[in-house]
Amino acid sequence: MLKNRKTIRIEWGDCDPAGIIFFPRYFSYFDACTHALLERAGCRQRDVQSEYGLLGFPLVDVRARFILPTRYDDDVVVESGVTKLGRTSFQVQHLLYKDDLLAVEAFETRVCVALIGENPGTMEARPIPPEFIKRLNGQKL
Amino acid sequence: MLKNRKTIRIEWGDCDPAGIIFFPRYFSYFDACTHALLERAGCRQRDVQSEYGLLGFPLVDVRARFILPTRYDDDVVVESGVTKLGRTSFQVQHLLYKDDLLAVEAFETRVCVALIGENPGTMEARPIPPEFIKRLNGQKL
Amino acid sequence: MLKNRKTIRIEWGDCDPAGIIFFPRYFSYFDACTHALLERAGCRQRDVQSEYGLLGFPLVDVRARFILPTRYDDDVVVESGVTKLGRTSFQVQHLLYKDDLLAVEAFETRVCVALIGENPGTMEARPIPPEFIKRLNGQKL
Amino acid sequence: MLKNRKTIRIEWGDCDPAGIIFFPRYFSYFDACTHALLERAGCRQRDVQSEYGLLGFPLVDVRARFILPTRYDDDVVVESGVTKLGRTSFQVQHLLYKDDLLAVEAFETRVCVALIGENPGTMEARPIPPEFIKRLNGQKL
Repeated sequence: MLKNRKTIRIEWGDCDPAGIIFFPRYFSYFDACTHALLERAGCRQRDVQSEYGLLGFPLVDVRARFILPTRYDDDVVVESGVTKLGRTSFQVQHLLYKDDLLAVEAFETRVCVALIGENPGTMEARPIPPEFIKRLNGQKL
Repeated sequence: MLKNRKTIRIEWGDCDPAGIIFFPRYFSYFDACTHALLERAGCRQRDVQSEYGLLGFPLVDVRARFILPTRYDDDVVVESGVTKLGRTSFQVQHLLYKDDLLAVEAFETRVCVALIGENPGTMEARPIPPEFIKRLNGQKL
Repeated sequence: MLKNRKTIRIEWGDCDPAGIIFFPRYFSYFDACTHALLERAGCRQRDVQSEYGLLGFPLVDVRARFILPTRYDDDVVVESGVTKLGRTSFQVQHLLYKDDLLAVEAFETRVCVALIGENPGTMEARPIPPEFIKRLNGQKL
Repeated sequence: MLKNRKTIRIEWGDCDPAGIIFFPRYFSYFDACTHALLERAGCRQRDVQSEYGLLGFPLVDVRARFILPTRYDDDVVVESGVTKLGRTSFQVQHLLYKDDLLAVEAFETRVCVALIGENPGTMEARPIPPEFIKRLNGQKL
């Protein structure tokens, strides 16, 4: 399956008065990691919209375990990979390491959707295009 | 058990180019809801630090299901409540409603910690003070 | 000219390891205040798009002075008002008070734009619709 | 004077429903750029606190001009430099380029402060340490 690796600097502004990261920022990092993973597979958000008429891959489920705290100036490494691949949805796992120790483990379940009508927020699930399935599986086209 | 209710306006800047909320913002909302819940119980972060020498209640686990999308200008209601209460940790459930329909369900597991030494990020679990247990249980003192 | 007033709680997650607000959050607050001001005038972002074919009012210039720091749990009041009104642009002033003392003063200059073509980010200035001029001036229609 | 250069990817989650960056995010980027600049000078936030008993360099004034919009997936370059250096304060200029075109220009005025007493938010200006003055001037020590 497809994998990607990203180094992230925990910034001052991402940390709270306890001096550790404010946890919602992790999900912003992970979202960026998923975009990087998809881009690596050749499934950029932008192309997904223009070429396939899809809106993208919003989340339906997320969970995370916070094992070690991180603080500002920490350089952490996030390993992201597709761990499940269904007809209309897929799961991404993110493993965030600090000094080679696992600090956070997260899972995102994302679903392939198209917009129905004009209104943002009205959308329905669609099958993931076959080329994407191959790419997310890590196959070269 | 203790409960609280908060109305939140989904802001333009919390939404992404798909026109729906960028999901990490939900966790910022929920964190604010937990603070409001604790404040209601008389367990403000500020007092937790000054009166009990505790750092606070960082998360060790979070999960969320996104059932309906929300978009900017939506006014949503979040009902937050303590759903489990252990010796050193507790669980908060957040139910986010849009037009009386459940849009998001989330669970936070938080642990009571104190700082060890001077460095932010070095901390250990501590028993939740007995007064807090009572307050989180919804008892009046 | 049009004015609006909004009470905001400074949240834990908006503050940094120095215990004070991370200043970019002020601009998120102010953006929400401008949206509230425009909504009060009957110029909601949503209607601006659907009824006038405009994209909205992005910023071309912003400045702020930070006079007093604010910290988590502070309840602050923001008074927002239109202070200049041109053909294609207008200026919004935000005065943020903490315990009746001025803590921040900010000015946003916003321009009325429409999208050219399909791509986000390609846009040009347009005259503010006459009804909006009247409303931003504080006149009832 | 001291300078630094940083490449930043505009992320999906930093953009708003108009498809362009939500402007407060720029200030988060710029804050990270200032931290990188100071780190390059050997004036890390962390050392500023532990070695000099200072709290850091909060902002007293900021302004920005937004010349060209940026959108998600844009890779932009920020050139940051110290442009003024006083006894207790300094100014940082950030120039953000998109495809070699100036998209944003911003100025931060930051003041060197120490905490007075225990409470976050109670602080006073202090002279910038002489070693820092040299380093911010771009001199090697």
